[in-house]
Amino acid sequence: MSKMKAAVFVEPGRIVLESKPIPDVGPLDALLRVTTTTICGTDVHILRGEYPVAKGLTIGHEPVGVIEKLGSAVSGYEEGQRVIAGAITPSGHSNACLCGQHSQDGAGTPHGFRPLGGWRFGNTIDGCQAEYVLVPDAMTNLAAVPEGLTDEQVLMCPDIMSTGFAGAESGGVKIGDTVAVFAQGPIGLCAAAGARLMGATRIIAVDTVPERLKMSRFLGADEVVDFKSGDPAKTIRELTDGRGVDVAIEALGTQGTFESALRSLRPGGTLSSLGVYSSDLRIPLDAFAAGLGDNRIVTSLCPGGKERMRRLMSVIASGRVDLKPMVTHRFTLDQIEEAYDLFAHQRDGVLKVAIAA
Amino acid sequence: MSKMKAAVFVEPGRIVLESKPIPDVGPLDALLRVTTTTICGTDVHILRGEYPVAKGLTIGHEPVGVIEKLGSAVSGYEEGQRVIAGAITPSGHSNACLCGQHSQDGAGTPHGFRPLGGWRFGNTIDGCQAEYVLVPDAMTNLAAVPEGLTDEQVLMCPDIMSTGFAGAESGGVKIGDTVAVFAQGPIGLCAAAGARLMGATRIIAVDTVPERLKMSRFLGADEVVDFKSGDPAKTIRELTDGRGVDVAIEALGTQGTFESALRSLRPGGTLSSLGVYSSDLRIPLDAFAAGLGDNRIVTSLCPGGKERMRRLMSVIASGRVDLKPMVTHRFTLDQIEEAYDLFAHQRDGVLKVAIAA
Amino acid sequence: MSKMKAAVFVEPGRIVLESKPIPDVGPLDALLRVTTTTICGTDVHILRGEYPVAKGLTIGHEPVGVIEKLGSAVSGYEEGQRVIAGAITPSGHSNACLCGQHSQDGAGTPHGFRPLGGWRFGNTIDGCQAEYVLVPDAMTNLAAVPEGLTDEQVLMCPDIMSTGFAGAESGGVKIGDTVAVFAQGPIGLCAAAGARLMGATRIIAVDTVPERLKMSRFLGADEVVDFKSGDPAKTIRELTDGRGVDVAIEALGTQGTFESALRSLRPGGTLSSLGVYSSDLRIPLDAFAAGLGDNRIVTSLCPGGKERMRRLMSVIASGRVDLKPMVTHRFTLDQIEEAYDLFAHQRDGVLKVAIAA
Amino acid sequence: MSKMKAAVFVEPGRIVLESKPIPDVGPLDALLRVTTTTICGTDVHILRGEYPVAKGLTIGHEPVGVIEKLGSAVSGYEEGQRVIAGAITPSGHSNACLCGQHSQDGAGTPHGFRPLGGWRFGNTIDGCQAEYVLVPDAMTNLAAVPEGLTDEQVLMCPDIMSTGFAGAESGGVKIGDTVAVFAQGPIGLCAAAGARLMGATRIIAVDTVPERLKMSRFLGADEVVDFKSGDPAKTIRELTDGRGVDVAIEALGTQGTFESALRSLRPGGTLSSLGVYSSDLRIPLDAFAAGLGDNRIVTSLCPGGKERMRRLMSVIASGRVDLKPMVTHRFTLDQIEEAYDLFAHQRDGVLKVAIAA
Repeated sequence: MSKMKAAVFVEPGRIVLESKPIPDVGPLDALLRVTTTTICGTDVHILRGEYPVAKGLTIGHEPVGVIEKLGSAVSGYEEGQRVIAGAITPSGHSNACLCGQHSQDGAGTPHGFRPLGGWRFGNTIDGCQAEYVLVPDAMTNLAAVPEGLTDEQVLMCPDIMSTGFAGAESGGVKIGDTVAVFAQGPIGLCAAAGARLMGATRIIAVDTVPERLKMSRFLGADEVVDFKSGDPAKTIRELTDGRGVDVAIEALGTQGTFESALRSLRPGGTLSSLGVYSSDLRIPLDAFAAGLGDNRIVTSLCPGGKERMRRLMSVIASGRVDLKPMVTHRFTLDQIEEAYDLFAHQRDGVLKVAIAA
Repeated sequence: MSKMKAAVFVEPGRIVLESKPIPDVGPLDALLRVTTTTICGTDVHILRGEYPVAKGLTIGHEPVGVIEKLGSAVSGYEEGQRVIAGAITPSGHSNACLCGQHSQDGAGTPHGFRPLGGWRFGNTIDGCQAEYVLVPDAMTNLAAVPEGLTDEQVLMCPDIMSTGFAGAESGGVKIGDTVAVFAQGPIGLCAAAGARLMGATRIIAVDTVPERLKMSRFLGADEVVDFKSGDPAKTIRELTDGRGVDVAIEALGTQGTFESALRSLRPGGTLSSLGVYSSDLRIPLDAFAAGLGDNRIVTSLCPGGKERMRRLMSVIASGRVDLKPMVTHRFTLDQIEEAYDLFAHQRDGVLKVAIAA
Repeated sequence: MSKMKAAVFVEPGRIVLESKPIPDVGPLDALLRVTTTTICGTDVHILRGEYPVAKGLTIGHEPVGVIEKLGSAVSGYEEGQRVIAGAITPSGHSNACLCGQHSQDGAGTPHGFRPLGGWRFGNTIDGCQAEYVLVPDAMTNLAAVPEGLTDEQVLMCPDIMSTGFAGAESGGVKIGDTVAVFAQGPIGLCAAAGARLMGATRIIAVDTVPERLKMSRFLGADEVVDFKSGDPAKTIRELTDGRGVDVAIEALGTQGTFESALRSLRPGGTLSSLGVYSSDLRIPLDAFAAGLGDNRIVTSLCPGGKERMRRLMSVIASGRVDLKPMVTHRFTLDQIEEAYDLFAHQRDGVLKVAIAA
Repeated sequence: MSKMKAAVFVEPGRIVLESKPIPDVGPLDALLRVTTTTICGTDVHILRGEYPVAKGLTIGHEPVGVIEKLGSAVSGYEEGQRVIAGAITPSGHSNACLCGQHSQDGAGTPHGFRPLGGWRFGNTIDGCQAEYVLVPDAMTNLAAVPEGLTDEQVLMCPDIMSTGFAGAESGGVKIGDTVAVFAQGPIGLCAAAGARLMGATRIIAVDTVPERLKMSRFLGADEVVDFKSGDPAKTIRELTDGRGVDVAIEALGTQGTFESALRSLRPGGTLSSLGVYSSDLRIPLDAFAAGLGDNRIVTSLCPGGKERMRRLMSVIASGRVDLKPMVTHRFTLDQIEEAYDLFAHQRDGVLKVAIAA
């Protein structure tokens, strides 16, 4: 049995490059040879033991690769084809999928819904920080990379770009909207880019790290607010003459950003939440207009599936959005422990790393 | 100057029938002679001093009446016509209205939005628990009562029915949905009726008062859950084989109902909140899937305007929904203090009272 | 190799019961033993040679049955389970499916869309007017029949009910809408029932056959218009005081019904078209307000997939709609040629036939 | 009584600058001193007698100006303020407005809807090709011009930009869509710009005039197709590998463009029609998939109202879209007959003219 290298969760604090068998290919699967992948903030939560996964699991959910082998029931693809798959790999056939909620896929449950059910890579099945990864339900999930796009150009599509854009989409951004984005890490940056792509004409980004605020201006923001200079919700209300914003996107996962986002809304505005929270949230009575503000709070888990990936790659191919500057550091798979160390400690202005396998 | 009787807020604990001048009619107004009105739960909050209004204000926001006099710039109506107006009386011309958010009308603000801005009757201007009421922006707000409908048949349209139905509408109820409604007071009952009207095929209503659960079965619920018999969210998950509901409607305004509603949702489900809260809300981390459940929380303030009223009256006229049984007690305007006493103490199985002026 | 009886298209004018091999079961398929099926208007078009299919094809796309055998890659079902499958059997994994357009599934095409692609039974693969039928992509398509529902109760779900309801859904029917339905054959009857289920408060049905108009009143219509008594669009405008209807549903597929539906609309109204047309359509300039009426014309092909079937069966199970009276005649599979003869000639007040296999 | 100069429709073939009284200001009106206006293709239809208006009517529906006088019931504005008003001036209070269909405003009709009802300037009331124009329902319609924007920068907002953008909005353009726009006159150019602003990543524009194709590339198109080089629908299908486009926008008003747009659609695609047609339209059976293609045909009349104008001006102010290059020629009001002559004959590469009053 052939072996491959894979970044494996051993115990809290330790993700280690190990040798594992190259997996067998089931009828609906495809085996990818990974050419490039990356590390996500969620992987750091796993590393720290904050998000529990099985010991021995291969981590990683953002694969760019080449089809090595197709399952016996898979058609429409060729071995050798360059593809990506989303971080979320829905089956396509659950009741959740058939309702359009592919991220909550519960194939196998009697009712067809399961919380986070579509997130399998590096969560419930082996992920892609490895030489090879098995893609389940391949026909639903493999998307061919258009000619002319490099691995790094499409590396953000599987997760960061899909999630960030979903923040704008679930928020229902319309032409002429004013949008505030709270936190300008990779997801918040993509949310600002997505809001701009959908026609928002005034995008106010909130962070404090100078490099992020600079990148924010490059990717989409019209104005930036340093939350260390004062209450950002108050600043935003002043900037909008007391009106508030149409859509506020939360892209961090804390009480502070959630609450500021809520307080920034105009009556009838929408809070689109992308963050992964780690404790209960509080909705202040006044910020919520006692329930009478015609407000919406929406949450989004990264949309996956091949059609989503196709569309995101077309955004890149069209030149409308250029996310390559987000890749600030490059490593090989052999150096992945070093990459985790850099990324987990957010050293050296890191935004995203590229791991060439 | 002629005088009229009006129920006036004097101080916390006292709403008193007083004599006041019949108001002058501005160019865009209409003066109604009120024939029937009612008391709302919100009025009780005002009575108790929990919701502050100016001393001397006439209370009441659910008018059925006859046009006594039209403003000089008002066309399209006739004096003597039987009409209703919604609890919310939008101007029609604010930016909020032009966005479709008539309840947050901010006519007069530079940006056109104001929280609760559309709620004027018995809040920022004199209301309709009186012999006469001045309807602002009459052309936007007066809706002719179809022939053959009695005052009591349309008495719920201005507020309770519009609010309850909005719970189902904002929740996006679809054919075949399972919907839970938390609390079966007047608004919750209307929410259940609205969910049924939109095609929900399984409606689970939660309360504990036997008369309300009985009325609930009459108006829309397929099943009722007594929350005193155990955790209602747990019961609902069991009833749905672990799936949860598509839409949960909160119709009371407490942490308990809000949280139970959230815990009842399927992944991707919507919590439609109608309650008026009186303290901060807590979103438990697990009930919120840490922000990754593709859930929506939406709040609705009673939709107003003449087109809304026309549609609600057409529901009544068609016989699809019959809300008359909700009127459990009848009073004259002279007896309104007695009516407040009964309603505020929820004595004698009262659901809604009719006040004939 | 075992044999079964199947109604096969031989040549225009001849659909004949023949003996064919029971099909082999591929990894993603399920073999159903058909217990009840029916004949659709589309099958009559096939019989007459108006819609071309391959000679030797088994006809029929509305199966109620029992799982006989599951493909090797199919999970979540058991042999012996009572199920239905929709007339449209999407793969779940094409780009069209991932966009929510399961009826235009183009699995296998490079771009994932194909006109009518989701319609396979009795069109591009063998159908269900047979003792056995092979259901492709079984995990996307098989829906368990709830306990207590008979075959005839769910027999309309696969096509007629799904199509008719889609007329109301695609039309965007809202609470308080006035809806006109043109033609009250099986699909038009279901469209009226669907419009009622979604909250339309005035439903005007147009036909001329007395039995149909009677059934129409039973299933949903508030008023019926006999198109032989005068121009139905004119009548409808009069009935609505010159306003027109919010939604007009076309359920026949002729220039006359299409044009009358268009002429019945209020400014800004929606024409929801369900008919299968057999010639070019003309849009009269005046009926279309020269393109300035803010109108929508939407067409719908029967939605399929197991979630759709689950929802439709829940409508039946809830008692909200009862379509059993639409089954006017009953046959066995051995009598299917006789059933075609009756149905194709619309003799004896036939609405739908049930074929017990 | 003071007099002003106004371009008046005298008879087919003659729009003439005449002297007329400056109108009186009713309670809900505002009198604008027009500073800049333009001529629309519709005005040319009026000139030619193809669209009938009353003799003596002042033409023009795209005003930029300064508030000269406010009606007695108008608040929220100041005399001397720079404003625009949309080509469509809804009342805000009709049932159509309250449904969100402001362009079909039927204030004054019993039911509140009237075809094209919102279009009043230069159609049912005097327009703005004059020194002064009376704006009806001023509080619904006057939008303050943001500081720093010139008259010419906002001159396209009242009609061309609002209409063109509505083509993309009504088409439901999404991130990653492929959009075809048929004809690249002023409205088609704005439609392409609007589609780009909403996230379309491949925009294919069809025309034949080289200057228009060049402007098209500047404003939004990724690719241009010269319809004289072959069937544009065929070309578009080839460019999209047989898939077709998600949204096709018709921006001329002919059978040819309408039919090509329909033939360009993918299954499930949307035809968004902006053109003003002058004869019946034909829907070819095959282009319409016999009614089974899950297609939508939507028409849009220019959205108006102050909130729409505010949003469009914010697009300009943000620099997202720059329509100034569309103003190819400049005239004074005294030269307006000359301007009509140039524009009606489409001489000298004219796209839009600016008329300084």
